[in-house]
Amino acid sequence: MSIPQGRGATIESSTPTEPIRVVVLGGDGYLGWPTSLYFSARGHRVLIVDSFAKRRWETECGIRPLCPIPPLSERVQRWHTPHQLRKEIHPIAFRCCDLAHDYEGLVELLRDFDPDVLIHFAEQPSAPFSMKSRRSAVETQHNNVLGTLNLIFAMRDICPQAHLIKLGTMGEYGTPNIDIEEGWLELEHNGRRDRVLYPKRPGSLYHLSKVHDSANLEFACRVWNMRVTDLNQGVVYGIATDEIDSREGLHTSFHYDAVFGTVLNRFIVQTVVGVPLTLYGKGNQVRGFLDIRDTLRCIELAALKPAKPGEFRVFNQFTEQFSMRELANAVANVGRTLGYAVEIAHVENPRVEAEEHYYNARHQALRDLGLTPHLLNENALASMIEAVARHRDWIDPFSIAPNIGWRKKPELPLKAGHVLAA
Amino acid sequence: MSIPQGRGATIESSTPTEPIRVVVLGGDGYLGWPTSLYFSARGHRVLIVDSFAKRRWETECGIRPLCPIPPLSERVQRWHTPHQLRKEIHPIAFRCCDLAHDYEGLVELLRDFDPDVLIHFAEQPSAPFSMKSRRSAVETQHNNVLGTLNLIFAMRDICPQAHLIKLGTMGEYGTPNIDIEEGWLELEHNGRRDRVLYPKRPGSLYHLSKVHDSANLEFACRVWNMRVTDLNQGVVYGIATDEIDSREGLHTSFHYDAVFGTVLNRFIVQTVVGVPLTLYGKGNQVRGFLDIRDTLRCIELAALKPAKPGEFRVFNQFTEQFSMRELANAVANVGRTLGYAVEIAHVENPRVEAEEHYYNARHQALRDLGLTPHLLNENALASMIEAVARHRDWIDPFSIAPNIGWRKKPELPLKAGHVLAA
Repeated sequence: MSIPQGRGATIESSTPTEPIRVVVLGGDGYLGWPTSLYFSARGHRVLIVDSFAKRRWETECGIRPLCPIPPLSERVQRWHTPHQLRKEIHPIAFRCCDLAHDYEGLVELLRDFDPDVLIHFAEQPSAPFSMKSRRSAVETQHNNVLGTLNLIFAMRDICPQAHLIKLGTMGEYGTPNIDIEEGWLELEHNGRRDRVLYPKRPGSLYHLSKVHDSANLEFACRVWNMRVTDLNQGVVYGIATDEIDSREGLHTSFHYDAVFGTVLNRFIVQTVVGVPLTLYGKGNQVRGFLDIRDTLRCIELAALKPAKPGEFRVFNQFTEQFSMRELANAVANVGRTLGYAVEIAHVENPRVEAEEHYYNARHQALRDLGLTPHLLNENALASMIEAVARHRDWIDPFSIAPNIGWRKKPELPLKAGHVLAA
Repeated sequence: MSIPQGRGATIESSTPTEPIRVVVLGGDGYLGWPTSLYFSARGHRVLIVDSFAKRRWETECGIRPLCPIPPLSERVQRWHTPHQLRKEIHPIAFRCCDLAHDYEGLVELLRDFDPDVLIHFAEQPSAPFSMKSRRSAVETQHNNVLGTLNLIFAMRDICPQAHLIKLGTMGEYGTPNIDIEEGWLELEHNGRRDRVLYPKRPGSLYHLSKVHDSANLEFACRVWNMRVTDLNQGVVYGIATDEIDSREGLHTSFHYDAVFGTVLNRFIVQTVVGVPLTLYGKGNQVRGFLDIRDTLRCIELAALKPAKPGEFRVFNQFTEQFSMRELANAVANVGRTLGYAVEIAHVENPRVEAEEHYYNARHQALRDLGLTPHLLNENALASMIEAVARHRDWIDPFSIAPNIGWRKKPELPLKAGHVLAA
């Protein structure tokens, strides 16, 4: 399938296939929105579900994305307009539903839409937010764990054949002194062997909520024959996808702030506004990374080759691993060639984490399914810097410095005007 | 210390020590109540905290303990009366508080009481209850996981030096094909070594709530220097402790029903009422067991030799392992010598679990601390049968057969009169 786009670009369907019915839970967010467009552009029927809790959390923290994000209905309308008469593009549908608090609504939408695949981004996505206060910690685990538990029951009872693709994170594993495998570990102990769930020891109450989700989901596969793919995703970077770039006004909610921003996106914004790239502590922490476009492709691969009934399938979804220091140096070098005066600064680490550690994580399964990664190189960094620079006047440079500490009570000064409610 | 008791028995303090200040969370329950009496009898100051949620769940399921349990205040009064003028016994105090919903009350009681040790039984304790419906599953994980998360924050902020003794269960481990270690596992993988949290794969959403608790607590030890002892307890049996037996009216809430009853207690009741002892499926499931008196002694050992700041200490708290079939045969043999006509029946397994499996669980740490177990023998079984027989007329034989299935929707007939609300 080949769909002509507004600016003349062509979006190729990566894998020719019959259209499927896809629910994107959390479809208003940084990754949920481009995922929805990606599947829509390929002729699939898409239902976005969102509670807009993330927009409320942003307001609570006094932060905002890189550029103003119109209401979802308006964004959907912008996506539809040029497609309205093309029969191979179906309108994106929408339901407002909070998975943790509106089970009735959840059951109703599954019954009405009859999905083949559910892609589950509908979680509080920030480690610092979960460490902000007791209230935000409880809200995080309530929203994520009980929301997903409701989803398990709703799928069991309404669409037991559907495939759940759950977004997890590489951060669930922490930094063990052994190789990180893809969800499961074959081990020998006292002369006997078993295949066990990979032992996890993450670094925040947010990451723990995802660990709890995974454990509940593995159980649901065992007991109710659910089909689940758990994607332990690395740190995502990037602002552009083919669909977002296909016309004006389709931006996704890109964060660079200390609460919802991820590290490479933050470095890009720091470069553009001319403040030092901030390394937390020594900066020798190593993590897995991937381009936002690879997130979409990985999810497509998982959707088109679903887990079997009863299978709890885990993929480590990243393409390269870097230390924070390597990443800062790479951004600084590219920034300087583009004329920015980039500096790198070490700040006190607000987190409790190892700053020197072994890290070797397997990430073969998605390549085996056909992923061809977009690797991070100078061109990719330069185009991110250029894309972010177009929004330079809207950036809030005061929201970047970390203001939530992991240790007891916030010890770092709050940004003036920030209300970090207890 | 040696305290004369109502019936002339003497309760020896197992380990002479300075009195400590003990909060028993869930002190109205099967184990919380005898634990409270045990510490009180040894001169410690005890504050019971309970929300009485368990009594509500019993009503919801249409079941009741072996004998009527008076209100907590009345039971406490019965315990106090003969001690009122003895200065080495302090009155047991009480606060009603729901950890998951009343953070303000929790903070206030910790501030007022200033505990040295918190013993945490305040969780929904039944696997079948958690599998009854979506609502009961969510209530279980909400009550247990978010209640414990609130407790973590309250202790962090109010009594960071206090030691938390958290009741977990051996069921958290499931039935791996390798030896079960005490909470942590030393392993080698691809030529590198690490000490990891033992990988768990339990068999119900209740057990999963305890797995989530443990993961949150280990994090709190790492980040906030909490002192935690996580007791992965085997299946507890028994009805009598020295304190309960010291006078009339101090019974604990002993369950034999399909929801809150544990297996050996159920076999004893089945013997007394003359219905077959029910094995679920083949009956070759193996579990760890311990006498209720050893539960109390283990908790005392943990309390008097607390975890260090930052230490997440895990003990496997059981004394012997048996298969269900061995246990049924042992009860049947003793029952027959006492004149009961005991039969053993296999019923369809309501759970999803391995009925043939390897099981070898380490349980050395509490012995190293000084535990001398009460082992299960014919005398112990005979005295349990005799104790239960005194309440024969109050037993509800219709509440014993399993009426909650693990597979989708309850498939087993409901007992007439039982309301298993969705």
